[in-house]
Amino acid sequence: MLIGVFDSGIGGLTVLRAIREAWPGHSTLYLGDTARVPYGSKSAATVVRYARQNTRFLLDQGVDLLVVACNTASAYAMDSLAGLPAPVVGVIEPGARAAAAGAAASHIGVIGTAATIRSGAYERALARLRPGVRISVRACPLFVPLVEEGWEATPIARAIAAEYLADWLPGAPDRPDTLVLGCTHYPVLRPMLAELLGPEVRLIDAARATAAAVAPWLGGAAGEAVPRHRLFVTDGAEGFARAGCRLLGQENVELEVVDMTPLAAD
Amino acid sequence: MLIGVFDSGIGGLTVLRAIREAWPGHSTLYLGDTARVPYGSKSAATVVRYARQNTRFLLDQGVDLLVVACNTASAYAMDSLAGLPAPVVGVIEPGARAAAAGAAASHIGVIGTAATIRSGAYERALARLRPGVRISVRACPLFVPLVEEGWEATPIARAIAAEYLADWLPGAPDRPDTLVLGCTHYPVLRPMLAELLGPEVRLIDAARATAAAVAPWLGGAAGEAVPRHRLFVTDGAEGFARAGCRLLGQENVELEVVDMTPLAAD
Repeated sequence: MLIGVFDSGIGGLTVLRAIREAWPGHSTLYLGDTARVPYGSKSAATVVRYARQNTRFLLDQGVDLLVVACNTASAYAMDSLAGLPAPVVGVIEPGARAAAAGAAASHIGVIGTAATIRSGAYERALARLRPGVRISVRACPLFVPLVEEGWEATPIARAIAAEYLADWLPGAPDRPDTLVLGCTHYPVLRPMLAELLGPEVRLIDAARATAAAVAPWLGGAAGEAVPRHRLFVTDGAEGFARAGCRLLGQENVELEVVDMTPLAAD
Repeated sequence: MLIGVFDSGIGGLTVLRAIREAWPGHSTLYLGDTARVPYGSKSAATVVRYARQNTRFLLDQGVDLLVVACNTASAYAMDSLAGLPAPVVGVIEPGARAAAAGAAASHIGVIGTAATIRSGAYERALARLRPGVRISVRACPLFVPLVEEGWEATPIARAIAAEYLADWLPGAPDRPDTLVLGCTHYPVLRPMLAELLGPEVRLIDAARATAAAVAPWLGGAAGEAVPRHRLFVTDGAEGFARAGCRLLGQENVELEVVDMTPLAAD
């Protein structure tokens, strides 16, 4: 099968990587909307419009299954992607399910971009999956630029995280027992966050949960002898390739550039 | 006259503010491309395409003079905006001129987004305006998100600046005597940077220099009794209005939302 994955930029490569590792026999096609990244600071209407354009591009390429590897797009655009000729899976439902399934989860924290947090999507999913659970959310807008700068292991990253998560640090009276990393860039920050928050807080990586969530469609499908993988971006600036290597865990990535706004280009 | 100003987002409001203060009798029309902000991490081809779309929108509104209040667009797109029915002024040439005009300038530093610095536009302008001057540049990608988060006066902002500008701090052997704030967001960081770098470093604010640079067209033109001011954005998320108030120095701003990609919208 051909699995299509899109994200606002390159963060979704952490999801792509988890999918490739979980389902090595299948081909993948990734679209990163790097010409309009980030979505996390923008409004619902804009995010829905971009998600529909990305979806159309992937369907035109013949994907059999579509993964929305962007928390902001998953938060706002899933309803607008109903009725397509291919099944669509987002990252929020799998992430919420992994958090809610923890036996000890009684207070779940969620961190994400401004738009993801403002959407309330994780809170709704968690409240449905684990009725009565306590939920706390926190927007962390500086985390994405921090990861893209490659500063995830610096004292500055730690200081910024300590500022955002001040009342969840060890010793605070009312800490979450579970924390959902509700943005595809955040797995890169995981070691720093684990150290900062201590071993009592279980960190949930939505990328891995999403890779597992496509099982119903891929479980029975035959794999390919030589799966193909292609990476498309809407802007080919060099920085995206560099950060992409880190997120995908490869030494080199070859990015093909497509223009998503040809009709309005001039 | 009707002065049109565009920027990748809301940072250009610092330029708009300087223009309104310098030329209170003239009407202004601002376009912030908040649906595709930032430009600073993107490639030249994408920035040129966006700049042309923004320009067309402003010309359709009947502006008499166009100000490109975005360093990245000024760095890449000025040549592609030649031959329009209205004069076009960017921010780089005025900023460079203000820096080069300093009697004591022998080592000029420039800070900006990744794309502005990569373009080499300030270096070319400075080398032309003050032959033989020593020029040092530094990309500071975290400064814009820091300002948009409202953290410009925090110890974290200071730590990030100290990291970027480590070898320009007091006591370093080879410091610039002049520093160009080569991004429209950076005037907000000015007090912190002034304190960090000390009084020996002259800080150049390209916004004010740009407001002065439109004099040839406005100097002789009659003002209006009741000038009108309108602010357009391509995405109306609430955070943009909040940050816009800070950058424009007003308690309220009314943002009108326009869609720049109507033909490719669905």
